Amino acid sequence: MDLNRLDQQIRFVLELDKLKYVLRQNYLIGQDRQENTAEHCWHLAIMALLLAEYADSKINLGRVLELILIHDLVEIYAGDTYCYDEDQTVDQEEREAQAADRLFALLPMDQSTRLHELRNEFEEGSSMEARFAASLDRLLPLLMNHYSQGRLWKEHAITADQVLTRNRHIQAGSQSLWSFAQSIIEDSISKGYLTVKSDHD
Amino acid sequence: MDLNRLDQQIRFVLELDKLKYVLRQNYLIGQDRQENTAEHCWHLAIMALLLAEYADSKINLGRVLELILIHDLVEIYAGDTYCYDEDQTVDQEEREAQAADRLFALLPMDQSTRLHELRNEFEEGSSMEARFAASLDRLLPLLMNHYSQGRLWKEHAITADQVLTRNRHIQAGSQSLWSFAQSIIEDSISKGYLTVKSDHD
Repeated sequence: MDLNRLDQQIRFVLELDKLKYVLRQNYLIGQDRQENTAEHCWHLAIMALLLAEYADSKINLGRVLELILIHDLVEIYAGDTYCYDEDQTVDQEEREAQAADRLFALLPMDQSTRLHELRNEFEEGSSMEARFAASLDRLLPLLMNHYSQGRLWKEHAITADQVLTRNRHIQAGSQSLWSFAQSIIEDSISKGYLTVKSDHD
Repeated sequence: MDLNRLDQQIRFVLELDKLKYVLRQNYLIGQDRQENTAEHCWHLAIMALLLAEYADSKINLGRVLELILIHDLVEIYAGDTYCYDEDQTVDQEEREAQAADRLFALLPMDQSTRLHELRNEFEEGSSMEARFAASLDRLLPLLMNHYSQGRLWKEHAITADQVLTRNRHIQAGSQSLWSFAQSIIEDSISKGYLTVKSDHD
C-alpha cells in the first residue's frame, strides 16, 4: 500500500465534507430550509437508480451514478450558481473550471484525470449516461419546487417560459420524463405556482 | 409509459427527501452541526468511488454504489441508531425491517423486491461489494470523529476498546483500510480524543 497515495485520497475525502455547507436555492419539501449540494447529489443518485428504465437508450447505471456523485464537486470552491441568475451564470463555466483544477489537484494524478474526464463528460453531455444524469438534475429540482407550492419560483418571480426553456433539455436524456415534466409544469401554472407572462408585460 | 408506475416511483423519490431530516450523531468536520443521513450516504458513495482499489478482491463499483445509496433508507421511519447506545441497538434490526417493509411498499413490486434484496445483501455482508461498503461505512465516521478532535467520543465517553471492537469489521472488506483505521485510532488515543480504560476502572 502506497501510504502517500492513500493519504492524498483521504485528505480529498475530508475536503469533500465542505459540499455539505454549500446551500442551493431550492427548499426541502415541507421544510423551512434550503437544500445543500451533498444532499442533492445523494437524492439525484438514488433517483437515477429508480428511474433508469426511462433513459432513451440503454445506459450503464454505474456510470450514471459516478457522473452524478461528482457533477457538483466544484461547488466546494465555486459555490452554487442559481440557474436563473444571469449575473451569476455569466462566468460560471470559468469559475467552475478553476475550482475543478484546484480541487482535483489534491488527488493522485490518475484519479485527478478521471474526475476531470467525468466532469467533462457530464458538462458536455457526450454520452447517453451524461445526458440522462443531466435530465434528472433538472427534473428533481422541478419536482421539489412544484411540491413546495412553487415557493422558490414565487420568491424570484420565475415564469413558466423560463422553466420550460431550462427544462426542455430533459428530452435529451428521456422523452418520457420530458412529457412528465411538461405535465408538472402545466400543473404548476394551473395551481398558480408559476406565472405566464402575457404580451403586455 | 405506464403512468401509474411512474407516479409510484416519483412519490417514492419525494418521500426520500425525508432522509435529509434524519440527524446522525457525528458532527461535520469543523462545523458546529451534526450530519444528516442523506449527506452521509453521498459522502460514503464518493468515498467508494475513490477508494475502490483497496477492496480485498475485485469489486463491481456500480453495485457498491447502489448498496451505499440505499443502505440507510430505513432511517426515514426508523431514525438513526447510535451504534454505541445499547438501549437503541437492542431492537434496531426489527425496527429497521419494519421500516423497510413500509417504505419499499410504496414502489412497484419489482423495485420493492430489488431494494429489499440490496438491503439484505448489505446487512448480511453476503458479497464482497457489501463487505467493502460496510467497511467504508465504519471508516468514514471514524475519520470524521478523529478530525473533529474526538468531540463526539468525548461527549459520550467512548473508549478506544469500543471503537476498536466496532471498527474491526473494516477488515472484512479491506485489510489495508483496517491497517489505516488502526493507525487513526492509535493517533486518536495519543491525542487524547479516545480514552483507554484501565483495569481499575
